[in-house]
Amino acid sequence: MPTHLDLIAFDGDDTLWHNERSYREGRERFRRLLARAGVVLGPEEIEECVNRTEIANLAYYGYGVSSFVLSLAETAIDLTGGRIAGGDLRDLIDLAKQMLTEDIELFPGARETLATLAASWPLMLITKGDLLHQRSKLERSGLGGCFRYVEIVSHKTTDVYTSILARHGIPADRFVMVGNSLRSDILPVVEAGGWAVHVPAAVSWSHEDADAPAHVHGRYVEVPALERVPGAIGTLVRR
Amino acid sequence: MPTHLDLIAFDGDDTLWHNERSYREGRERFRRLLARAGVVLGPEEIEECVNRTEIANLAYYGYGVSSFVLSLAETAIDLTGGRIAGGDLRDLIDLAKQMLTEDIELFPGARETLATLAASWPLMLITKGDLLHQRSKLERSGLGGCFRYVEIVSHKTTDVYTSILARHGIPADRFVMVGNSLRSDILPVVEAGGWAVHVPAAVSWSHEDADAPAHVHGRYVEVPALERVPGAIGTLVRR
Repeated sequence: MPTHLDLIAFDGDDTLWHNERSYREGRERFRRLLARAGVVLGPEEIEECVNRTEIANLAYYGYGVSSFVLSLAETAIDLTGGRIAGGDLRDLIDLAKQMLTEDIELFPGARETLATLAASWPLMLITKGDLLHQRSKLERSGLGGCFRYVEIVSHKTTDVYTSILARHGIPADRFVMVGNSLRSDILPVVEAGGWAVHVPAAVSWSHEDADAPAHVHGRYVEVPALERVPGAIGTLVRR
Repeated sequence: MPTHLDLIAFDGDDTLWHNERSYREGRERFRRLLARAGVVLGPEEIEECVNRTEIANLAYYGYGVSSFVLSLAETAIDLTGGRIAGGDLRDLIDLAKQMLTEDIELFPGARETLATLAASWPLMLITKGDLLHQRSKLERSGLGGCFRYVEIVSHKTTDVYTSILARHGIPADRFVMVGNSLRSDILPVVEAGGWAVHVPAAVSWSHEDADAPAHVHGRYVEVPALERVPGAIGTLVRR
């Protein structure tokens, strides 16, 4: 039970700003592309193929738009037995560029919540994915000034959190992570000895789903919206 | 003129391990793919198209294999007017996966040079490109243990170096960067007030070429091979 906190970290995608929505639109666009190419599969079957390819490719490309679009291209080539035309695949390149440059839409209360917390604690952004794109999103979000530290990582494992905390000389017990993903933002932080606030997103990638084992209860709280994060951190601190 | 150094940093790609060679092989494979698809252009013309697309796409995808392969796919689609078949483009996906997992081959003396320097100074790796791939290359290189710090960045500008040094509380005047690229490793470091050792690679990407303006002379030295780096740093320190 921390009586003092040294650092509060936030996830970015689907915690502070919309992200998965854009991937869902991308998958819809991909289904239309497949339909034009004569692939007769239902949305669920296509979704399953895309997910399988994406997860297999995480080890190669990591998380991010380039990875997503390369996986879509691979799926399209597989599902058409290589018959899909380059002209159709150009649509995927256009999709990548659109996703990489589209406007950042913040969740309600993002700016105010960060401003409130930044008055009392140093804040860090810990986000995974493509280095350039995450930097660009942070810049375009207008939230850059709220964060004293920014860590862009390829995976969010317990080891990764432990190593970030060690590098900054912060005991895990004095650290709170705020994020939408149980798998990436909550469970590994609790495993590392930290605290967490879970703000579930309305839409999130199925790969980020996880069940919380019993021993992590009490180490994190769930709140329905960002505005409730400062209050939740208050209860963690006072507990 | 530093009498003391606080930190020595190395670039990775084409400084400690081979990299551009693999991209050259990729471009050759791409030319064969275009030839099979009926594109009748000479190697120089193809090279020019690829380079133009790659440089235009740096703003979207940054540096790295995913970026390269997405640019090759776009070039192939453009040069065939969209007629290239998905089956041919699959070769580019195979290329990406091969490039991302192929063995790391160190330059002669890499390990010994780092070990020599690490006995006297903390070492940092500063490398640009894809986060996951750069981490994986460092791990597979076996050189991870030589570096106290690792910084993977999306660009190597003067601002980026200044910000790394500020974060580590190191005066630029007590910092030396070692790398193969005048544009990325030498000039921005000298602009930031640091020192540099240039180890030109036998092959390097034309985009990394640069001319050294007169005022940077005296702030960096050029050596023909990694084994000569400790001696060169000795002369910088004593100057």
